[in-house]
Amino acid sequence: MDSQGFREAAATAIDDIASYYDNLDDRDVVSTVEPGYLRKLLPSEAPVEGEAWTDIHKDMEGKILPGITHWQHPGFHAFFPCATSYPSLLGELYSAALPAAAFNWICSPAVTELETIVLDWLAKVLGLPECYLSTGPTRGGGVIQGSASEAVLVAMVAARDKYLRETVPLDQFPEGSEAREDAIAHKRSKMVALATSATHSSTKKASIISAVRFHTIPVHADTGYSLTGPVLAKTLAELRARGLEPFFMTATLGTTDTCAVDDFAGIVSTLKSDPVHPAGTPGELWVHIDAAYAGSALVLPSVQEQVTISLIENFHSFNMNMHKWLLTNFDASCLFVRDRNWFIQALTINQAVYGNKASEGGLVTDYREWMIPLGRRFRSLKIWFVLRSYGVKGLQEYISRTLKLGEEFADSLKSRPDLFEILTGPSFTLTVFRVAGKEQGKSEEELNALTKAVCEKINASGRMWVTSTVLDGMFAIRLMTGVSTTEKEHVDRSWKILVEAAEEVLKA
Amino acid sequence: MDSQGFREAAATAIDDIASYYDNLDDRDVVSTVEPGYLRKLLPSEAPVEGEAWTDIHKDMEGKILPGITHWQHPGFHAFFPCATSYPSLLGELYSAALPAAAFNWICSPAVTELETIVLDWLAKVLGLPECYLSTGPTRGGGVIQGSASEAVLVAMVAARDKYLRETVPLDQFPEGSEAREDAIAHKRSKMVALATSATHSSTKKASIISAVRFHTIPVHADTGYSLTGPVLAKTLAELRARGLEPFFMTATLGTTDTCAVDDFAGIVSTLKSDPVHPAGTPGELWVHIDAAYAGSALVLPSVQEQVTISLIENFHSFNMNMHKWLLTNFDASCLFVRDRNWFIQALTINQAVYGNKASEGGLVTDYREWMIPLGRRFRSLKIWFVLRSYGVKGLQEYISRTLKLGEEFADSLKSRPDLFEILTGPSFTLTVFRVAGKEQGKSEEELNALTKAVCEKINASGRMWVTSTVLDGMFAIRLMTGVSTTEKEHVDRSWKILVEAAEEVLKA
Repeated sequence: MDSQGFREAAATAIDDIASYYDNLDDRDVVSTVEPGYLRKLLPSEAPVEGEAWTDIHKDMEGKILPGITHWQHPGFHAFFPCATSYPSLLGELYSAALPAAAFNWICSPAVTELETIVLDWLAKVLGLPECYLSTGPTRGGGVIQGSASEAVLVAMVAARDKYLRETVPLDQFPEGSEAREDAIAHKRSKMVALATSATHSSTKKASIISAVRFHTIPVHADTGYSLTGPVLAKTLAELRARGLEPFFMTATLGTTDTCAVDDFAGIVSTLKSDPVHPAGTPGELWVHIDAAYAGSALVLPSVQEQVTISLIENFHSFNMNMHKWLLTNFDASCLFVRDRNWFIQALTINQAVYGNKASEGGLVTDYREWMIPLGRRFRSLKIWFVLRSYGVKGLQEYISRTLKLGEEFADSLKSRPDLFEILTGPSFTLTVFRVAGKEQGKSEEELNALTKAVCEKINASGRMWVTSTVLDGMFAIRLMTGVSTTEKEHVDRSWKILVEAAEEVLKA
Repeated sequence: MDSQGFREAAATAIDDIASYYDNLDDRDVVSTVEPGYLRKLLPSEAPVEGEAWTDIHKDMEGKILPGITHWQHPGFHAFFPCATSYPSLLGELYSAALPAAAFNWICSPAVTELETIVLDWLAKVLGLPECYLSTGPTRGGGVIQGSASEAVLVAMVAARDKYLRETVPLDQFPEGSEAREDAIAHKRSKMVALATSATHSSTKKASIISAVRFHTIPVHADTGYSLTGPVLAKTLAELRARGLEPFFMTATLGTTDTCAVDDFAGIVSTLKSDPVHPAGTPGELWVHIDAAYAGSALVLPSVQEQVTISLIENFHSFNMNMHKWLLTNFDASCLFVRDRNWFIQALTINQAVYGNKASEGGLVTDYREWMIPLGRRFRSLKIWFVLRSYGVKGLQEYISRTLKLGEEFADSLKSRPDLFEILTGPSFTLTVFRVAGKEQGKSEEELNALTKAVCEKINASGRMWVTSTVLDGMFAIRLMTGVSTTEKEHVDRSWKILVEAAEEVLKA
């Protein structure tokens, strides 16, 4: 394919994409193919001779789109959103056209510099404390990771190494000695990472990868599924009584199941008065804030205040995924750290082939020292396009609009207490609910079965998709309204489908 | 931006991209901006009001492109290539238009199924043994990772957990017991991952992240910088004599510095006759093959034979990056494993919100259990487009053409023994050389200084870019010819620039 062929093929692709979005509501939300559908449609080997674009192109609609679940569909209320927008698409397009392994500054200075700049822009928009800016007093800054799972892994590895540096004294166990290896191995075997039962599974996965213990702190309805200071204090004491050493915790701003927010003020207060390693002293607990989804709502000053975001100056790292709820394509997981040296000390490896004057002079940021991979895509471009195209006001309007839809949906649920019981929310557009009937004496088993039946019925409509979860043994439906194409009319339609399904199920 | 605005903006972007490639040789290869150039050009905060596309668009050429190092430039001979092609760009475009957090099958069946199919296609094209196919007898298969660093980390974590399962007996140390935690911590503190001094730094980084020891096996010119069976046998014995337990090794097909290939036959033979944990028995050494760059050359049957690729049926995992030398955009790091359960056992975490019938029925692949992140882009689309657009023949022609350019360049070097000494190669288009003068009595220090001067001079031309390395203390220039835009005329031009620079430096 030459440049003329590309111009023509790309014109068809752009037309496909614009038409896809213009007519998205005509499609069913969830793919209905059977497992293995595609293998039946494709040859078992790559073609020997090259094929024409027209042949490849027609398979997009004919073979691929039937197997797509449409995350931008206005009836997509499942999980959290996986965002895109037209400006973001343009950013992805230029980014793909300018590939560079970009593992250090000279590999493409713009890739590094734009990342630092737009993450400072973003930190300001989200109201993060100054210590998370690259220009801040503590040498902090942001880096774009591929996913929140990578972000939490990087934070945990940095925390593990910081803790070991601070608690295995160099004078007693000299650098490079066998005694130090042994002391570290022994210490590491006692180290434990904490998360609550509502924390995303990525923290547990990070603990497996980085070879530390993992402890789950149960949270229940009584605290709104969020972690409080006293519960943390009790957990720390219990773990230490067992000879374990807590070194890391993920606290969440918007949990997966219910969008709960952990009690930042309570956590700060507990850690300041920690009897063993008070905050700010060697061996302190590293607190990572996972705001993967709900962090986007921080574009609203009212939300910044509501969740007391200023308190994260007491914590160590913070991540939010613009690719969830801020109109930017996956992958755009923005990770901020209060002191970039924590990352660099844990992850830097020098090899002669990467040597260059700018890096050696310390003039530039080499983001490979802030993450697992060496190479990286030009991901800041789409963020830059989104921030500029929408402007802060445009992002605020979008988030406000989707929050309002979530409230309206919850109001509808409340208007039919005969049919539904809200378990949590609305919180950041997410409401978690189940079929009503507890007061009429229905058992938990019956309620679970009825709610499951309603869930399956509405999903079978093709017009909407919700996912479910289990809260303290209660099967529940999660419904969120954060997708950019979702408007009032779609939420009203989903509500109507839901009411009909519940009435039918309860009648049966 | 509405769909009409997108159509118009995308048309300008497509025009930019086609023109960029048509005129790429008019630009200098490497960006010449100073560190910090971009902060001076951009505002310190995101705009409050949204901006028009025309304003954003004009900043691409005005502010971003000056900071780009052009990895597709025909004079780019540095590092390894970072690929793209028009079909790959189209794949990226559709992929960006269809975002889905695709962490399990139902999230978008096509994303999972196309990945399995194209990786089977690719495995066949590369001549990998059948055990690496999803349809193979050992339940193997491929998965697209973001980078080779992630691939080696996944392999190492799986190897670590396989080794612990096999060597910490469950009857003696029951699952979930404190005794088992302690036994594992103690065992892990003795476990060591191996790599040679020529292995890519990602293996060392993976050992840091996964908390195991790391041992470097020195390799030198006498074995062509590759690992041999006897050296491996000696290393294993020495480590065990120190009480350590080797469990993982990265062997390389095309090292970063010189494109050396480790001696697969020798490694197989050593491991089969290993006195402690012979291959195929519990506690065996996991061998991961890193073919990140040179793996692309396996599209040629002659290369498959030359490197004895069939022998990797004795190893455990294999990765190659289509995004280096096979016309596919970063990220397309293709990781293959002989038994997918090794990954799944190490990395699976279940959470209620991800439950669904297809996964629970075991009918489908959930790739989140094969990698670090949960969410993933639709990366198989670009691979599918590339394999179909070029066909196997097209890929073979491209690889053959670039290999030939590498040989021609090496022939040129050999034609001027008065100026140059080849240290290694040509190997997979890469030749490593330095300024001649050893025989005229120049010291190593002098040769290093002269070679460095030549390297800086040719890079200052703007017409070509090479990187350097240090081999056994010798400063050397690496020159590779794998970039898709590089033709005979460009290699000839680079040769001319090089000769002029060397003549000048030697005259001075």
